[in-house]
Amino acid sequence: MDQMDLGAASLAHHYCVVRAETEARAAPLSAEDQGLQSMPDASPVKWHRAHTTWFFETFVLLAACPDYQAFDPAFGYLFNSYYEAVGPRHSRAARGLLSRPGTERITAYRAYVDAAMLKFLPQAAADTRALVVLGLQHEQQHQELIWTDILHGFAQNPMLPVAVPGGLAPNALPGQTQYRRCAGGLVTIGHDMAGGFAFDNETPRHQVYLAPFEIADCPVRNRDFTDFIDDGGYANPALWMADGFAEVQAKGWRAPIYWEDDGMEMSLAGFVMRDPAAPVRHMSWYEADAFARWAGARLPTEAEFEFACADPDVGELYGLANAVWQWTASAYLPYPGFAPAAGAVGEYNGKFMINQMVLRGGSCATPDGHARRTYRNFFPPATRWQFAGLRLARNI
Amino acid sequence: MDQMDLGAASLAHHYCVVRAETEARAAPLSAEDQGLQSMPDASPVKWHRAHTTWFFETFVLLAACPDYQAFDPAFGYLFNSYYEAVGPRHSRAARGLLSRPGTERITAYRAYVDAAMLKFLPQAAADTRALVVLGLQHEQQHQELIWTDILHGFAQNPMLPVAVPGGLAPNALPGQTQYRRCAGGLVTIGHDMAGGFAFDNETPRHQVYLAPFEIADCPVRNRDFTDFIDDGGYANPALWMADGFAEVQAKGWRAPIYWEDDGMEMSLAGFVMRDPAAPVRHMSWYEADAFARWAGARLPTEAEFEFACADPDVGELYGLANAVWQWTASAYLPYPGFAPAAGAVGEYNGKFMINQMVLRGGSCATPDGHARRTYRNFFPPATRWQFAGLRLARNI
Amino acid sequence: MDQMDLGAASLAHHYCVVRAETEARAAPLSAEDQGLQSMPDASPVKWHRAHTTWFFETFVLLAACPDYQAFDPAFGYLFNSYYEAVGPRHSRAARGLLSRPGTERITAYRAYVDAAMLKFLPQAAADTRALVVLGLQHEQQHQELIWTDILHGFAQNPMLPVAVPGGLAPNALPGQTQYRRCAGGLVTIGHDMAGGFAFDNETPRHQVYLAPFEIADCPVRNRDFTDFIDDGGYANPALWMADGFAEVQAKGWRAPIYWEDDGMEMSLAGFVMRDPAAPVRHMSWYEADAFARWAGARLPTEAEFEFACADPDVGELYGLANAVWQWTASAYLPYPGFAPAAGAVGEYNGKFMINQMVLRGGSCATPDGHARRTYRNFFPPATRWQFAGLRLARNI
Amino acid sequence: MDQMDLGAASLAHHYCVVRAETEARAAPLSAEDQGLQSMPDASPVKWHRAHTTWFFETFVLLAACPDYQAFDPAFGYLFNSYYEAVGPRHSRAARGLLSRPGTERITAYRAYVDAAMLKFLPQAAADTRALVVLGLQHEQQHQELIWTDILHGFAQNPMLPVAVPGGLAPNALPGQTQYRRCAGGLVTIGHDMAGGFAFDNETPRHQVYLAPFEIADCPVRNRDFTDFIDDGGYANPALWMADGFAEVQAKGWRAPIYWEDDGMEMSLAGFVMRDPAAPVRHMSWYEADAFARWAGARLPTEAEFEFACADPDVGELYGLANAVWQWTASAYLPYPGFAPAAGAVGEYNGKFMINQMVLRGGSCATPDGHARRTYRNFFPPATRWQFAGLRLARNI
Repeated sequence: MDQMDLGAASLAHHYCVVRAETEARAAPLSAEDQGLQSMPDASPVKWHRAHTTWFFETFVLLAACPDYQAFDPAFGYLFNSYYEAVGPRHSRAARGLLSRPGTERITAYRAYVDAAMLKFLPQAAADTRALVVLGLQHEQQHQELIWTDILHGFAQNPMLPVAVPGGLAPNALPGQTQYRRCAGGLVTIGHDMAGGFAFDNETPRHQVYLAPFEIADCPVRNRDFTDFIDDGGYANPALWMADGFAEVQAKGWRAPIYWEDDGMEMSLAGFVMRDPAAPVRHMSWYEADAFARWAGARLPTEAEFEFACADPDVGELYGLANAVWQWTASAYLPYPGFAPAAGAVGEYNGKFMINQMVLRGGSCATPDGHARRTYRNFFPPATRWQFAGLRLARNI
Repeated sequence: MDQMDLGAASLAHHYCVVRAETEARAAPLSAEDQGLQSMPDASPVKWHRAHTTWFFETFVLLAACPDYQAFDPAFGYLFNSYYEAVGPRHSRAARGLLSRPGTERITAYRAYVDAAMLKFLPQAAADTRALVVLGLQHEQQHQELIWTDILHGFAQNPMLPVAVPGGLAPNALPGQTQYRRCAGGLVTIGHDMAGGFAFDNETPRHQVYLAPFEIADCPVRNRDFTDFIDDGGYANPALWMADGFAEVQAKGWRAPIYWEDDGMEMSLAGFVMRDPAAPVRHMSWYEADAFARWAGARLPTEAEFEFACADPDVGELYGLANAVWQWTASAYLPYPGFAPAAGAVGEYNGKFMINQMVLRGGSCATPDGHARRTYRNFFPPATRWQFAGLRLARNI
Repeated sequence: MDQMDLGAASLAHHYCVVRAETEARAAPLSAEDQGLQSMPDASPVKWHRAHTTWFFETFVLLAACPDYQAFDPAFGYLFNSYYEAVGPRHSRAARGLLSRPGTERITAYRAYVDAAMLKFLPQAAADTRALVVLGLQHEQQHQELIWTDILHGFAQNPMLPVAVPGGLAPNALPGQTQYRRCAGGLVTIGHDMAGGFAFDNETPRHQVYLAPFEIADCPVRNRDFTDFIDDGGYANPALWMADGFAEVQAKGWRAPIYWEDDGMEMSLAGFVMRDPAAPVRHMSWYEADAFARWAGARLPTEAEFEFACADPDVGELYGLANAVWQWTASAYLPYPGFAPAAGAVGEYNGKFMINQMVLRGGSCATPDGHARRTYRNFFPPATRWQFAGLRLARNI
Repeated sequence: MDQMDLGAASLAHHYCVVRAETEARAAPLSAEDQGLQSMPDASPVKWHRAHTTWFFETFVLLAACPDYQAFDPAFGYLFNSYYEAVGPRHSRAARGLLSRPGTERITAYRAYVDAAMLKFLPQAAADTRALVVLGLQHEQQHQELIWTDILHGFAQNPMLPVAVPGGLAPNALPGQTQYRRCAGGLVTIGHDMAGGFAFDNETPRHQVYLAPFEIADCPVRNRDFTDFIDDGGYANPALWMADGFAEVQAKGWRAPIYWEDDGMEMSLAGFVMRDPAAPVRHMSWYEADAFARWAGARLPTEAEFEFACADPDVGELYGLANAVWQWTASAYLPYPGFAPAAGAVGEYNGKFMINQMVLRGGSCATPDGHARRTYRNFFPPATRWQFAGLRLARNI
């Protein structure tokens, strides 16, 4: 899983940087905010802070550091997310019921583990250092979830609180969307396991045949999606997968999840005007797929998306990072020859390779430097609370 | 609803005493604890603190105090419990999602309203003073709920926290239970609307015919209920109402809700040994009814219970207060001639007179001086998280 | 349970009459119609035909007739309704999945048991004859259910089939409703266990104190209920119990269950015009209770209802039979001193004495001669598919 | 969708043969059996008989035959399955509530439409003949569903009835399973739209790159799956997708759906001994996937499966038809360049291309001549009531 072996010193530095970003995201949130769980799919912020710490404690310190004493034996149960090999765990849907341990105690837990980690890192062997790198990538994933989950929680509050004071930088996409042509052919995708970290699900690098296609140079914007809505998109079954239209009717979907009337939306910066030129986001795969059909186009496959990013004939594609995750036409399945990592961390990705669709790109909530061209994000097709939009493609 | 008109000075004193008890119960709980909602039927402690304050703000200050400015206009929506006449309200099941307003702000809300109330009380007219008395009785009911609800919440936490440091005073019942004979006849029950407060549901005082009966001088004890369990009580359908046995099977009930193995139980004092001589508690009406049938007895009706407490021939009955609420055989229905109070507070009791059973007595969680002989507590028959047990009766 | 000991000859005659009525109700229904189960609370017609037969086979023939051979050993499991003492049983909600045994085989089962019964009856002892009488009363109850259940089933069919060709006799109530005064006092209600059959739940006869009241001489008519609807009754929470208004909102209730636009309704005679002068029916207790509140009245208690029917000062009350069952203000609870019948038939009534409300009177679907003044029908308050309406009462 | 244009005479003959097979499958079932719907995913047999007839009436006769009069206008609503373009339709889950129209009337419907079709076919234009061919393929799919659905229904009946008297021919697989090597490379799959019928989802023919692999020459047998169970396969989370293990625990799965103790299983021939050498069947994709992982192998992709069947180096693969459908590792997604058929029949396949996995092969319930090498069957991964098993593959 780790193809990048940082030296101990730079690893310690990287460790501090990543851990600090988590705390920075949590800092504007009160202890009560950090305990909030608004649905089973979302977790409390303090749980994210504890679980990412548990990862280092469990897979690094308890596994490889001889003198390490666990901060609290109960935490092994409370903060295991889904690792069956590690033992039983607290129910996911009940994470919001853990008023104790309190947020202050989670802060102490983080400090305790950080101290132990920084003391231990100089002696850590290469395989352990690889687990540290994995743990930091893991923590970055939870940094994004801290924002998606608190946004969902705050959106349930009639007072519509602000989670990120000052908000995120504006991300309007300039200009007009253009299609870029890609010749395809027998191409190679996936991570080559050299020159930097990749998750196991990005491997092995393998060949895929692509017919020629075109791909948009920009994600779809809010103003485009408004046209879809105004054209009756949510009421026209011909545009939808059957499962998607059933969701539309059962849940009463009429727009992306955080859209409100009068051009407003709920966001991390609170209740604000939508920017028509910003990428549309917080939609399900079903909505992305229906929009693409309405637009006379389709979603790109993940192989098309990945290859187009690297193909010099295609040119620069905008909105690959700091914009939105972009739903693809690809189911999240193992690459040919895929083998999960050995040990408990083999549960990291492999056991989720069913019932989900791949997203590519990266969002305004993704930590800097986390995503990459081969990165495979994935969620079930009805998922709406992520920073997810789309980019169009079409056959030639 | 109020038959007791305290003078303004003593009312102000009473106001301070009751309000202080609420704060005393909340004091050992962190801000995070106070936000906890473990099921739709339970509310966060801070919500109880705010809602009881909203009652005074809405029905007293905004209604009768000319210069009063609402603390926060949003609170009218957030902290209305169920008063349709007052306007729309936040969903009950989503009270636990209100990380904001935070606990500190609720504390400020209480202080603000208390100051306004204490300033206003000397000028308050009699009908307004009656609403203040009602509001204090209302707050006392929520004091008990603070404890039942936090106990339920803490029981979901694998760390089994302590809600009341030092616990509640032990309440073992001495001696052996005896049946007391009551001749019955055409008796009068209900509150006479003189000499002290009563809720509207305790009125009007009216005649009821009672055949002769016997009633136990003590509630049923833990050791008695252990016998029922050991005798296979939960597995024998002949002892149960059909709806009750369906609950037993669907939910896997095997003992009162907080009983654990090895004679332990979860309590406000944390995880402790059960006292065999203490009244059994935290059971549904179904369990109380099945136990009584197993014991060759039955539950008393509420009229029997109330009359026996006053009948000099019966003698003292133990465990009427500071022990447990005791399920009766009576459905919670309006007394003959019942009319709800006028105005929005008419919603206080009347609209709940269906699908519930009456409990009599009072529990270790009931504030001192709150319950009385004519008091009608009520919950649906499957309710288990209250301090509820039973007392036996039988025909002669 | 049986206070009436018919001679063997007249019992055999009675047996034939009752059994024939069941077949007469089933006759217009195809085999496929008879297998229909449109909700867990309703049962297929052929199941009713088999279960009533199972009652005689199980409690009479197998229990008391030495040479009797069961028709099919599997039927003991398939057609037990809820008798725990008799053994395990097929799931209620899955009765509609029993395409086999087919309707023809149920017809054969009935014929086989009838022949054995008629042969056995002359030798039957008094206690067995009492069980036969109970079985016939039981079968009459299922005759009403045959009609309520097939009506519910046919109402789900877009073709709105006719269940009773020719329909039921029209039942418009003449004239205008008048209130009749009743002095009340210490009265006696319940069955005296002499002079005819009664279910155990009608006993023992006992004293009840009634304050003076007035009761309407007629059930509420469709035209009255139309006024309630036109006055916004379903949208006004002040008229409803909280649980009732929650049902209204959750289920979208806007009228009695079978009412359709333009004055039409689904009925046993198919899709027909409602008669404004006919008693309103097919409503829940919640709707009856809300209507009464809107009308400035209340539901009578079951004791008031029963006593008024017998009080010579009250005069004749219309619509006691052949009209509608009438919801009362009384919860279905045991009478003072109630003891269930001995043996498995003790499960007949007693174990359902919770979560239900009493109805009095009798409907157009009730077999002639089945209901009586002391008869206690009962259903949960949200029940709508029965022939249930109401009669008003008020305090004096 | 139709690449095969039969002459009118042979099409008429083919029409008669296919329609007769449907009737032959329904013939042993009573009218009551034919109305049975045991879960929302299954439909009553008589509904299958009517819906397949509706297809011809709607898309052929009403669309292209000028003088045709609809048999019953209500049937357009009752027997539309999911064609939004055709209009509203009866709820799928409520198909079992249609006791009327009765089975006899469905028989008359079929006869009426058959007569009209046979009269019309000689004049039918080529595009209409193509819809007839599609309708016959559609009817063959429902022939398999008649068996899968009645089997599920009968399995709910404690009497375990026989749906196919005499049963299906035994299908033990001889010998031992061998892996066959396939070199892969840039291969072509999908239907070439020449030389016979294909569904739109099998097109267009396109190139796929395959790494070398091995594929078993036989499906997995009952005896192999017994080894998996005996080895604790259902209790070992390391073998399962997370969603699959959650299903195992929530539903209590311990074996394929119709397996019973003592080597027995419920089947179309009733309750019979399992043949250890027969292909294992009636399992979900999750179980197939877990078994493959346990066996140190994996499921083949649909491209591997299809190509291997045609690759002369691989040799004959057994169990491609008349055995079981075989779950693949491929999600059911559109082939590159896929375009649904024009008109309402474009809803046939395309709108279901999400949340499902592809099965290849063909089962003992598949009509002769229906399946083919390029055929894509598909079901959600939790589906268990189909004749579905698996074949193993592995990387080289």
